[in-house]
Amino acid sequence: MTRRLLLISNSTTHGSGYLDHCKEQIKQFLTEKIQTVLFVPYALHDHEGYEATAKKAFVSLGYQLESIHRKTDPVTAVGSAEAIFIGGGNTFRLLNALYDKKLVTEIRRRVLQDGVPYIGSSAGSNVATASIHTTNDMPIVYPPSFTALSLVPFNINPHYIDPSPDSKHMGETREARINQFHEYVSSPPVLGIREGCILLVEDKVAKVVGANGARLFMRDTAPRELATGDDVSFLLKEC
Amino acid sequence: MTRRLLLISNSTTHGSGYLDHCKEQIKQFLTEKIQTVLFVPYALHDHEGYEATAKKAFVSLGYQLESIHRKTDPVTAVGSAEAIFIGGGNTFRLLNALYDKKLVTEIRRRVLQDGVPYIGSSAGSNVATASIHTTNDMPIVYPPSFTALSLVPFNINPHYIDPSPDSKHMGETREARINQFHEYVSSPPVLGIREGCILLVEDKVAKVVGANGARLFMRDTAPRELATGDDVSFLLKEC
Repeated sequence: MTRRLLLISNSTTHGSGYLDHCKEQIKQFLTEKIQTVLFVPYALHDHEGYEATAKKAFVSLGYQLESIHRKTDPVTAVGSAEAIFIGGGNTFRLLNALYDKKLVTEIRRRVLQDGVPYIGSSAGSNVATASIHTTNDMPIVYPPSFTALSLVPFNINPHYIDPSPDSKHMGETREARINQFHEYVSSPPVLGIREGCILLVEDKVAKVVGANGARLFMRDTAPRELATGDDVSFLLKEC
Repeated sequence: MTRRLLLISNSTTHGSGYLDHCKEQIKQFLTEKIQTVLFVPYALHDHEGYEATAKKAFVSLGYQLESIHRKTDPVTAVGSAEAIFIGGGNTFRLLNALYDKKLVTEIRRRVLQDGVPYIGSSAGSNVATASIHTTNDMPIVYPPSFTALSLVPFNINPHYIDPSPDSKHMGETREARINQFHEYVSSPPVLGIREGCILLVEDKVAKVVGANGARLFMRDTAPRELATGDDVSFLLKEC
C-alpha cells in the first residue's frame, strides 16, 4: 500500500470558516472510496466541541466523521480506520495524548503499512513529522518524547511567518528560531509552510499545494523559497 | 539570608543596546558590595560571543563578569559566586544545560539559602520560575524535565504581547496559549511581563518595576493588569 498524507498549515484562514480554504484538496485526497474519517481531537481540551466543528466540515464534504475520544479502545479504532484526521491545537498536548493512549505505533503502522490516508492540520501536521522540535506552541504539558509519528523524515513548521520589517517586538523571528534548531548537528530539514500552504505526500512524491508557498530550511544551507506546485520529494529520502 | 531576584522580560529594547533599558535597575539591585557576576551563557550556542556582549554591559556598570562556560567545574563556580546572571536565548537549551551540568540544585541552594542575587533576562527569567511551561521558545532540544529552578512558585511569560487587532495570522494569541496552560488543574499563576517590564523579588516582597506593565493570568480568574510599582507579593505564597 502507498503512504498518503495531506499536511495542512492551518485549519482556518482569516475571514473564512473551519477548513474552508482546503475543502477541495481534502475531497480530492480522500476520493469517493472513503466513507468515514476517524477524527483525533486531542490537541484541544474540549473534545466534544471540537468534534462538532470537524463533523460539520466533513459532513458538508460527504463524509461521516467519528471522533476517537468516544471509542472505548482508541488503538482498535485506529486499527479499523478508513482515514485519519488529526486536528490542530496544542502540539505538546496532542503528542502527549498519542503516547498516553499508545497510538503512536498504531497510527504509524496503519499509514505506512496499510496506506490509510492521513490528514493533519497545524499540530496534526507537526506530529506527522520526525519530531515536534519545530512547533510554535507553548509547552503546556511535558510529553514522554519530542519524537513524533515520523511519517516523513523531516520536520514541519506550520503557520510559517516571514519577519515583519515594522515590528518593534524583540522576540526572535521564526527563521531565527528554526536556525537555532539547526545549530544541533543531527537536526533534519524544516519545511516552513505558510498559512494556506499544504504538503501533499503520495508514496515517494511530495508536493507543495494550496494557496501559499513554503520556505525550506536545511542545516548549513541558505533557506529556499518554494511555490505551489513545487516538487519536494527529495525531502522524503532519509537524512 | 534573603532571596533576591531581578527578572527582566527582554535583554534588548527596540532601538537601544544590550541591557541598556535596565542598567539602572541592575546597578541598584547589585549594589556596590558585589564585585564579580557569574554569567550563564547556555541559552545561546555561541558562548564566547555571548560572554563578550554581556561583559561589555556589566563592565560599563562597574562589575567584573566571568562566564561559567570557562570554568572547569561549573558547580563549584556557582558555589562561590557573588551574584548570578542568566542571559536569554532558547529556554529549552538553557534548562537542558542546567540539568546536564547538575546546576539546578546548586543555583537554587545559593539563591534561596545563601541569598546570592540572581538576575535573569528572558529565558533566564523563565528558568527562575516554577517551570518552563510558559516559554515562547521553540523546543529545539528535549530537556529531562520542564520543572525549573523554582525560585518563585509561579510561572513567567516573558516578551508578553497583547493581541493585535489588525493581525490576519491565525496562530493563537499569547493570552490564548496561557489559557490553554491553565486548562491543566495544577497549573500555577502566569505573570506575562511585557518588554521593558521587570519583576523585583526581595525576600517575601515582589514588585513590578521597569518601563512597562504586566498581565497576570490565574486559573479560573479573569486576567488582571499590573502597572509599574504594583505589589505582587501574594504570588510568592505557595499555590
